Amino acid sequence: MAISLARRMDDLKASEIREILKITENPEVISFAGGLPAPELFPVEEMKIVSAQVLEENGSQVLQYSTTEGFVPLRKQIAERMNRKFKTCVTWDHIQIISGSQQGLDFTGKLFLDEGDVVLCESPTYLAAISAFKAYQPVFREVPTDDNGMIIEELEKILETTPRVKFIYVIPDFQNPSGRTWSIERRIKLMELVNRYEIPVVEDNPYGELRFEGEMLPSLKSFDTKGLVIFISTFSKIFCPGLRIGWIAAEPNLLRKYVLIKQGADLHTSSISQVEIAKFLELYDLDANIEKIKEVYRRRRDVMLETMAIEFSGNVSFTYPQGGLFTWVVLPPHIKAVDLLGRCLKHHVAFVPGDTFFPNGGVTNTMRLNYSNMPEDRIVEGIRRLAKAMREY
Amino acid sequence: MAISLARRMDDLKASEIREILKITENPEVISFAGGLPAPELFPVEEMKIVSAQVLEENGSQVLQYSTTEGFVPLRKQIAERMNRKFKTCVTWDHIQIISGSQQGLDFTGKLFLDEGDVVLCESPTYLAAISAFKAYQPVFREVPTDDNGMIIEELEKILETTPRVKFIYVIPDFQNPSGRTWSIERRIKLMELVNRYEIPVVEDNPYGELRFEGEMLPSLKSFDTKGLVIFISTFSKIFCPGLRIGWIAAEPNLLRKYVLIKQGADLHTSSISQVEIAKFLELYDLDANIEKIKEVYRRRRDVMLETMAIEFSGNVSFTYPQGGLFTWVVLPPHIKAVDLLGRCLKHHVAFVPGDTFFPNGGVTNTMRLNYSNMPEDRIVEGIRRLAKAMREY
Repeated sequence: MAISLARRMDDLKASEIREILKITENPEVISFAGGLPAPELFPVEEMKIVSAQVLEENGSQVLQYSTTEGFVPLRKQIAERMNRKFKTCVTWDHIQIISGSQQGLDFTGKLFLDEGDVVLCESPTYLAAISAFKAYQPVFREVPTDDNGMIIEELEKILETTPRVKFIYVIPDFQNPSGRTWSIERRIKLMELVNRYEIPVVEDNPYGELRFEGEMLPSLKSFDTKGLVIFISTFSKIFCPGLRIGWIAAEPNLLRKYVLIKQGADLHTSSISQVEIAKFLELYDLDANIEKIKEVYRRRRDVMLETMAIEFSGNVSFTYPQGGLFTWVVLPPHIKAVDLLGRCLKHHVAFVPGDTFFPNGGVTNTMRLNYSNMPEDRIVEGIRRLAKAMREY
Repeated sequence: MAISLARRMDDLKASEIREILKITENPEVISFAGGLPAPELFPVEEMKIVSAQVLEENGSQVLQYSTTEGFVPLRKQIAERMNRKFKTCVTWDHIQIISGSQQGLDFTGKLFLDEGDVVLCESPTYLAAISAFKAYQPVFREVPTDDNGMIIEELEKILETTPRVKFIYVIPDFQNPSGRTWSIERRIKLMELVNRYEIPVVEDNPYGELRFEGEMLPSLKSFDTKGLVIFISTFSKIFCPGLRIGWIAAEPNLLRKYVLIKQGADLHTSSISQVEIAKFLELYDLDANIEKIKEVYRRRRDVMLETMAIEFSGNVSFTYPQGGLFTWVVLPPHIKAVDLLGRCLKHHVAFVPGDTFFPNGGVTNTMRLNYSNMPEDRIVEGIRRLAKAMREY
């Protein structure tokens, strides 16, 4: 192309997941690749009633432009839910409605990052967060993690020695891609460190409410005494993703900056979709719906883990997610997940190779498996095919 | 704030229009400030039928994630409409669905602009385009314009002498804020120049279909032989803005880059809203709806211009828009529009001072008036109040 683009475009590549997802549109393929919720659990009948009522009551208003900050009753409902579920102490003026939580990641990059600034993240971390931040040309420093979250001593070493750290990006609950959850001790220690260094923390929490067992742990935001935590979440996993409604919860001073960014980026999020979700929350019991989702996903997780334990050889390990949508598989070092995927697609089974979840690369023998979008019998069959491809490798 | 933000945030200020709009929420205020369509013309009853049918036919699919590029049937309908209305020759693979045309402006900045790159634009130009581009820290060069569009000789001088021009941003039809329309000769000359210099052109065209008299002129995109024109439009002004559905039409090579940006920015635009608009276009006659809108806006324009001719003194001039939503008023040099607005708000009438439509500032005696959102009697009363405030000045 003769046209001269911005330098940021040199680094921007198509999301591998979305490319793989195109292949998996073939219904014969058993896909563990996406992060799609189970559509059979979407409240379609309720949405019919909700959308009719919203248009009946306020048709011309919900089809008109609205404020950048979002629909106030929805912001109030979100604040109330957050305080109840995530033990936070926020009010509606802490809440900015966004068009899915991905937009919160993009805005965060735009708000904080000049070229060459440093983002600290878990290793591995969420692929689409890497893409969102990359557009602002930062350097990623991956912080070593274990089953309890970031290793705080390692994080402290990095903070001590690294200039230009702009924020720490973490997914404390049922992390994407690893399925791991931070222990409460690590959460507290992280916040102590963060308060000391006064470094903002981006707490990405789309899955937190999907806990299959045990009690929900308090969010990082609940320990935030200095207004450093930016909490991002979404209705995509607890309701449905097609409406593209998410939110940012942050201190009003900081939130005002996000509002400025949103004005320039898309003016505001869909008026009607915001009012519809608010109406749904008023008329129906979202928590009851979440219970149904959890029940189905828990069984799918169990089936996937049990089948892997039977089918995979002893030198393959995987995480035990207490909630969320993903488990993370570590293959023997000689197996390249990208090559394995090629073989798997011939057997009509798909996953996402772990490589792209490491912003600085270098890890080739891991993969992310999603269990939320396939029925139990397909999960069993898919894992068998995967095991077969591994044996052939 | 102790937190360190990106340098781009130093320049980002709240949109003055949106701040003024907050004042105008008081129903006593007659507002010529916004750019809101008339909500009484929204097809609410049709949308009830459409949304019920879409959920009935395909509920779980329209509530699920969908592709970044957008819903294929809608992309086909848009391509067909564009070719019919704007004399283009595009197919669905030239179309990317976006969340309102503002998002197309943001993405264009992200795609093309490194800090210090140059954007050429009309003088004055659309305020929210300035905000969108500013986030990527360019330099604006304003090209002198007259009633027929950019003065091509001036544009050529600038192109000859200015390095790092990344694109030319124009609104050829019923420009925001001036209400002016480019002549066909200027369109052809612009494209000759652009083809010679191989500079991309961003044709922002949200109002083109709202022509009250005469024939629609061919779009710049219709003269695009080298794939240099990026056409951005929206359903906001011809249907309703609350769904936030717009589109970009560009050569597939270039469109792929926009798709990458959209993946990182918000994954995709609302699945259900896209399917709803496609269904509306299938079931109903959007063009008939546009005829209704044009009839109402034409009368409102006439009333506004006639009342201004009677009420304003001879040293106030204003444009005669052949379509769209705005007229542009030039006040005597000693009147500062910002000060006049202060007086006007006391009389409960509002407008947008022209200052902010000049990216490099320096013009203080102009204002933008919107006539689409007020009934005729309120327009008469509002212009009288404005004239009174001017006399008091």
